[in-house]
Amino acid sequence: MGNEQQDRPGDPLTALLDQVRLRLRDLDDGEPASYIPELGRVDPDLFGLSLCALDGQVYASGDTTTPFTVQSVSKPFVFALALADHGLENVLARVGAEPSGEAFNSIRLEPVTGRPPNPMVNAGAIVTSSLVAGDGPDERSARILEGLSAFAGRPLKVDEAVFASERATGDRNRALAYLMHNAGSLTGDVEEQLAVYFRQCSVLVTCEDLAVMHATLAGGGVNPVTGDRVVAPRHAQHVLAVMATCGMYDASGQWMLQVGMPAKSGVSGAIGVALPGQFGIGVFSPPLEEKGNSVRGIAACHLISDQFGLHLMRATVPQRRPLPPRSLHPAPLRSLRHRPRSQREALDARPDRIRVHVLQGDLDFATAEQTLRAARELPGAVSWFVLDLTRVGRVETVAADLLRALGEDLRTRGTRMVLADPDERQAMARPADEFPDLGRALESCEDGLLAELGLDPDAPVPLADCDLFGRADARVRAALADAFDTLRLPEGETVEPPGARLSGRIVLWYVESGRLAVCADSVSTVRTWSAGPGAALTPADFPARMSRQVLAERDTVCRTLTAEGLMRLRASVPEAVAVLERAPLEGAETVDRADTA
Amino acid sequence: MGNEQQDRPGDPLTALLDQVRLRLRDLDDGEPASYIPELGRVDPDLFGLSLCALDGQVYASGDTTTPFTVQSVSKPFVFALALADHGLENVLARVGAEPSGEAFNSIRLEPVTGRPPNPMVNAGAIVTSSLVAGDGPDERSARILEGLSAFAGRPLKVDEAVFASERATGDRNRALAYLMHNAGSLTGDVEEQLAVYFRQCSVLVTCEDLAVMHATLAGGGVNPVTGDRVVAPRHAQHVLAVMATCGMYDASGQWMLQVGMPAKSGVSGAIGVALPGQFGIGVFSPPLEEKGNSVRGIAACHLISDQFGLHLMRATVPQRRPLPPRSLHPAPLRSLRHRPRSQREALDARPDRIRVHVLQGDLDFATAEQTLRAARELPGAVSWFVLDLTRVGRVETVAADLLRALGEDLRTRGTRMVLADPDERQAMARPADEFPDLGRALESCEDGLLAELGLDPDAPVPLADCDLFGRADARVRAALADAFDTLRLPEGETVEPPGARLSGRIVLWYVESGRLAVCADSVSTVRTWSAGPGAALTPADFPARMSRQVLAERDTVCRTLTAEGLMRLRASVPEAVAVLERAPLEGAETVDRADTA
Repeated sequence: MGNEQQDRPGDPLTALLDQVRLRLRDLDDGEPASYIPELGRVDPDLFGLSLCALDGQVYASGDTTTPFTVQSVSKPFVFALALADHGLENVLARVGAEPSGEAFNSIRLEPVTGRPPNPMVNAGAIVTSSLVAGDGPDERSARILEGLSAFAGRPLKVDEAVFASERATGDRNRALAYLMHNAGSLTGDVEEQLAVYFRQCSVLVTCEDLAVMHATLAGGGVNPVTGDRVVAPRHAQHVLAVMATCGMYDASGQWMLQVGMPAKSGVSGAIGVALPGQFGIGVFSPPLEEKGNSVRGIAACHLISDQFGLHLMRATVPQRRPLPPRSLHPAPLRSLRHRPRSQREALDARPDRIRVHVLQGDLDFATAEQTLRAARELPGAVSWFVLDLTRVGRVETVAADLLRALGEDLRTRGTRMVLADPDERQAMARPADEFPDLGRALESCEDGLLAELGLDPDAPVPLADCDLFGRADARVRAALADAFDTLRLPEGETVEPPGARLSGRIVLWYVESGRLAVCADSVSTVRTWSAGPGAALTPADFPARMSRQVLAERDTVCRTLTAEGLMRLRASVPEAVAVLERAPLEGAETVDRADTA
Repeated sequence: MGNEQQDRPGDPLTALLDQVRLRLRDLDDGEPASYIPELGRVDPDLFGLSLCALDGQVYASGDTTTPFTVQSVSKPFVFALALADHGLENVLARVGAEPSGEAFNSIRLEPVTGRPPNPMVNAGAIVTSSLVAGDGPDERSARILEGLSAFAGRPLKVDEAVFASERATGDRNRALAYLMHNAGSLTGDVEEQLAVYFRQCSVLVTCEDLAVMHATLAGGGVNPVTGDRVVAPRHAQHVLAVMATCGMYDASGQWMLQVGMPAKSGVSGAIGVALPGQFGIGVFSPPLEEKGNSVRGIAACHLISDQFGLHLMRATVPQRRPLPPRSLHPAPLRSLRHRPRSQREALDARPDRIRVHVLQGDLDFATAEQTLRAARELPGAVSWFVLDLTRVGRVETVAADLLRALGEDLRTRGTRMVLADPDERQAMARPADEFPDLGRALESCEDGLLAELGLDPDAPVPLADCDLFGRADARVRAALADAFDTLRLPEGETVEPPGARLSGRIVLWYVESGRLAVCADSVSTVRTWSAGPGAALTPADFPARMSRQVLAERDTVCRTLTAEGLMRLRASVPEAVAVLERAPLEGAETVDRADTA
């Protein structure tokens, strides 16, 4: 895993990890742990650095596949398993969550309850280990091994020699366990509980395993490599919180101050780091400082946090530049629906009824609050408030909640909130008020406004009644209507746009009923515009590169005038052509555009 | 400040604050502090809740303008002032940054150094207060008052009666100060130092002040109401980190576990909360629980964190749905530059040389890493990698750094990284490789590719040489060239598009030299397309709603054929019109579109 990246020269992230490792390779303070011979025999020059992204990509630099015993880095994961088995409240009844200000092997217990201070010191970890579900020590050990393997995304094994040594030399831990048994915070057979704990510490992992395990916590409990959910999101959150305040023993405050990422270190020289929503890191370098943390491991975490500005307490404030697409649209924005003049005039007369607010970037508390403010400053006349989410990235819970509250609040004030959202986050709006793009959202608002004004945008408009013909008399109108062909398109049928080479030289399209849409792309459903009853279209409405196909969105009746038809009309009823040439098409277009000769 | 919002019914965020307050109004456990008479006399039913957004908007619910003494909530801000005066290292030499696991009035000092454990307990706060710059206690007190006022955004005052009482009854603090003086961690005159500290605790603030003060920390040290920078970003970050691990005394671990936002409480019943990059909160309700924290204040913070999912350790993982605009463009994407056939064919023959990657949402580590991955998976033939940032929100340091590293790495591999970025974040690319929109970025890549293939896209192409005329002989070519008018446009000049009513019925535009661009909007500079030497355009290339003006981006020579010119040509040299009708225009267009009669 990751080795192929390491070998490829062209990977800037691996290169950055390499740089970090290179800068620290000469840092040769400290000594490997030596309280058991197995740890003392390790090569002190081993140095590995791995990072696992939340989609499972593993980056590796140095000795990232060398196995070592997980030791105290197991504590957050076994805490997570205990939380999964009993829930936070029951676990907290047996072990605290306060930094003790003391070393990893502190014997201080809470005065009244006898609880160890937190699950990250040895005493607390012995208790959480004893809380993992299972009938007897073997079953519990098996569940712990299975759980750690699920976090790592591969089957892990126990180093039996280390286990035997730990068990034989664990005086201090044995003392802690008996003290807690005496205080009532550790129940059951003390030696059995200790065996489970020592086995847990003796599980073999690699630097890459640690990166994946911490990425699983950072990603809310889902292993990014296997895709399996290992623990619930709330339990992953609990574990990270306890790592943040207690993970580095009596240097936890300093760690939060200077590194600012939840972490856990172990006596074999490993440090694991998890940045919520971003990544997991594993570092391995055996020499330890006096508090029992890897010297290079600490330095590497400092460098990474500094260099990348990854501190949890950094304030990334959104840019203030009033970019037009991010602000409230001051002018009325119209959909690209072709409409007859009567509807256009009605909409033009009420530009104050529909407002569009365009959002960009991730939606968090800050952006949602700004949207609420924009909505509060809406003029009273606004009845449709369109939120364009098409440029939005991830949406945090708080933002969805606030926008939902906004939608409800606006409704009580007689304003509808309408979403343009290709991701269809229907949590925020009633489905009826949500559309996949801004064009459709605006069309719906305009249709609503027209209905309010007594106009039915879907009512058929026969060609004879259309506003193109102005005050033409009945004879001229009849001649005009005669000159047009009829094209019936059932819903879902597509035709080539008139811009296409073999279009039959249609110079004017008129929609009597139904709806047409022009799609920019035949694969996706990106609509350029649509046209309802009463709309008249010239070839200029079918721009060459944006009109791949014309789709009948409903059963549609079109009337079409070809260049030949126009020539015949010019010969037989010239005043009819004059009427057409004066016809008020949209966008200052006139038919003479289409009839250029 | 904020009261007008409170009185307006239609504000969903104030309504949510009201709901929180309402749910907790009947929670009447605890008693107000009574160690001095001034605190004991307070109305226990007072309850205020304020939130200040990072653009200075203040939301208020309940008793948010009632003054009370700031007490321990001053500690983070005075710590910030000490950091500003001396820097982190010098302050840490005098006071630690470790949670002590003990109460606010703990007398435990660090064994060797005699340092108090952290600046959030009384002992540590007395030391940081003594570190604020100033000649003598009066100047130091004045600087502290001025500093707290800068955080609050308004001039604050001291409650002299409370100050006198605090000073008269502060036995425990006096004892702490003398112990630290004895240990060498507090220097100078003990009574003078204590007076400065007691005055600091006696500054009067309101709930709204606390919201603004904490928003200043959350926003990296800039007061969002006044816009003034109060402390440096790194010092704001340091303060939040220490609040996160030590702010709630011996309940800090529990607080991080269950609330997950940096906070500080005070004995007057106030709690301040700062969520980095998001907001500041002030809560005020005098009755305290046994540890000295406001009962309702704690409950309100729990509710807000739970309800909004605001925990720092939450994992907001980006959506995985492979949305087309967020993914690597698989097909060759072409700019909307009109080009002569030779250039079009050259570009069509090498669709593998230019790739576009579209990003959306905020750019953080995770999105940047995914981009690096996409770049690594590029086929070897790609020489231009276009990053479309037009839909991106905020950009975190780590993302900018990674993308800059990517640009450098790609360059060593012979690939140029080109940015389409309206915000022109030039930190990421050399200016020459950055363009305000995707169209211009693509045009630049295409021009580069053409140059590599030996074609100069800017070289003039006289009409007589143009590829429209196919294999026509010299006589026909001369007749055709004669039929066209000449239009010279100096750089910067705009003309009406031929779609406009009074366009003089131009049916064909030909660019001999220079460059034209069609802009969708006369206000902004949104370009729909551009056209260089050798490009031929018909009215269908000027779609009605997207062609507000045609701009000469350079000195440009156009040749134009009117409908009248075409008719004359048809009469005199009919085979020339036949040539035109077969002319290979872009997008399967032919001139017969323009010449419909």
